[in-house]
Amino acid sequence: MSEPTDINFDRMSCPLPLNDYAHVLLGHGSGGKLSADLIQRVFLPELGNDILSALEDQATITLGSVAASNGHPAPRLAFTTDSFVVRPLFFPGGDIGRLAVHGTVNDLAVGGAKPLYLSAAFILEEGLPMDDLRRVVTSVAESCREAGVQLVTGDTKVVDRGKGDGIFITTSGIGLVPAGRQLSIRNARPGDRVLVSGTIGDHGIAIMSVREGLEFETILESDCASLHDLTRVMLEVCPGIRCMRDPTRGGVSSALNELAAASKVGVRLREEALPVRREVSAACEMLGLDPLYVANEGKLIAVVPPDHADSLLSAMQKHPLGTNAACIGEIVAEHPGMVIMRSVIGGDRVVTMLAGEQLPRIC
Amino acid sequence: MSEPTDINFDRMSCPLPLNDYAHVLLGHGSGGKLSADLIQRVFLPELGNDILSALEDQATITLGSVAASNGHPAPRLAFTTDSFVVRPLFFPGGDIGRLAVHGTVNDLAVGGAKPLYLSAAFILEEGLPMDDLRRVVTSVAESCREAGVQLVTGDTKVVDRGKGDGIFITTSGIGLVPAGRQLSIRNARPGDRVLVSGTIGDHGIAIMSVREGLEFETILESDCASLHDLTRVMLEVCPGIRCMRDPTRGGVSSALNELAAASKVGVRLREEALPVRREVSAACEMLGLDPLYVANEGKLIAVVPPDHADSLLSAMQKHPLGTNAACIGEIVAEHPGMVIMRSVIGGDRVVTMLAGEQLPRIC
Repeated sequence: MSEPTDINFDRMSCPLPLNDYAHVLLGHGSGGKLSADLIQRVFLPELGNDILSALEDQATITLGSVAASNGHPAPRLAFTTDSFVVRPLFFPGGDIGRLAVHGTVNDLAVGGAKPLYLSAAFILEEGLPMDDLRRVVTSVAESCREAGVQLVTGDTKVVDRGKGDGIFITTSGIGLVPAGRQLSIRNARPGDRVLVSGTIGDHGIAIMSVREGLEFETILESDCASLHDLTRVMLEVCPGIRCMRDPTRGGVSSALNELAAASKVGVRLREEALPVRREVSAACEMLGLDPLYVANEGKLIAVVPPDHADSLLSAMQKHPLGTNAACIGEIVAEHPGMVIMRSVIGGDRVVTMLAGEQLPRIC
Repeated sequence: MSEPTDINFDRMSCPLPLNDYAHVLLGHGSGGKLSADLIQRVFLPELGNDILSALEDQATITLGSVAASNGHPAPRLAFTTDSFVVRPLFFPGGDIGRLAVHGTVNDLAVGGAKPLYLSAAFILEEGLPMDDLRRVVTSVAESCREAGVQLVTGDTKVVDRGKGDGIFITTSGIGLVPAGRQLSIRNARPGDRVLVSGTIGDHGIAIMSVREGLEFETILESDCASLHDLTRVMLEVCPGIRCMRDPTRGGVSSALNELAAASKVGVRLREEALPVRREVSAACEMLGLDPLYVANEGKLIAVVPPDHADSLLSAMQKHPLGTNAACIGEIVAEHPGMVIMRSVIGGDRVVTMLAGEQLPRIC
């Protein structure tokens, strides 16, 4: 993506050229430009196919032969996977087990699927306290109940001390996509509105505040939650939603940049409209971070035709997980592939994708 | 499982009592008794449900609502996951990428499913040579083509140097189970025959020979391969196969002990019938290992009613991946839950499940 030179580069952009790297860097796991680069240069040339290369949060697959015989539409499944390597394992508002369940459930939910079944594969480090494992397993079980999904298959491996880091969990999920539903990050059209379901940056800052020993008047908790019921309500009210994304690693910035690129449209944000908690805002200033780049684990972004935006927003705000929902911008025909934000003090800046690593191992 | 005192304990049995451990040991990832203990004591009490608790190599799930409306049988899916943490990443006959694809394909295939879709989640260690990653990704792509599956979704995370070990891969797979097919490790009946599709222990010894610097006259290669076509042929010839298992971690011993426990039957093996390569046999002697406990990555065990055993065996031997197939024993009503082997020199021994860790990080 080339960047225009007539406006300020975002302060998060990285001076490193995105050339071939001889070694994997932490930034290749950032969910930003380096991640995208790794996918485009290393994974897709070998593994690319119509489904994988769409780079949605979930693959939609059609079980063709099953129902074809009688003229009924073939069942469509959503299928997704994510590894979780968050440090620390336990943090205010959640832990790695909760994150692993809700993260995968959300990838299904934002695709418009009803999440049904999960798998979980644990990579444990020798010496891990068994009590820590028990806590995490309990949390996985509770989170599955909250999300209404069944964990049906799993695996456990153990690696030698110093070759892992406590617990890594990889969850995969299967959901059912109702007939006719077709959400995609390629669907955004000029004029569409961009909604967010609540305050941004809560998860990343909750993790950072533990790591950095920051203290707030109140405990800042991760927003980690399953969005399956919120998406269900949203799609009932507004079946015409173009697409949804959960802005995890790389934050709202990555999600919107990917969307802009995939739909070949521009995104215009209004900084004043971004819902950000006071504590998150303060912590970001202290740590030199921008909330737009900080991970969320219980929020979504939705793109919706303008005439449905108000009713959708109002439905979201009535849902417990959407009380702070807001319209934060719109899709435009100008500057396709770019996200530009009108700042509080006026003036536009390009919200680039994060280049390197801002918050390693946030999920 | 209590063990009789009137015959020799297997030399692989471990003196440690399987009590509660305060910390995770390498042996908890062995695929033997400690693994089973961890699953029974930590995972199942929290996460157990009808599907997970069956402890098959794959979960079979029914998409109820999809096809129920018109009286057609609902599609049944097989769903499985495995993490791969093998060291070294590259070994004779394969690498971690090949292992990750074929391992998951095989878990679907031995359930009688047609493997269709895969996900792959990579956990990379900072500093990993990019060329190593490229080699592995190429191998994943080639293996998917061999196995006739599509990799449709993925994830990449990076952990800091010293918190991982090069590459870990978690693959999950989805397959379609034909109507009426119902393989299960609970199905074995006295009189059934136990077949193995070829020589045992090749994968584990190939890995160990690299680690230990053993040299053979010929290079001993891992047997790593996708069994989907072999299982297809087998089920065509003999739809009445009771169950199949791929004896990976923990080897043939673990697979048969799990089967004996689940079906509440005994297994009698004949040592002279076990197909073992000369080099594997020699290496096992040198390393103090028993081929029954050594991992395989391209072999399966099948339990079949006696009157179908000969035709099935002959069909297996005609398949490139079954040329060394053999009937190695039978299911008996005596000593339910136990595997007993008649040795070459006569005399019976109990083939217990491996207790601790014999070959860490073999897959």
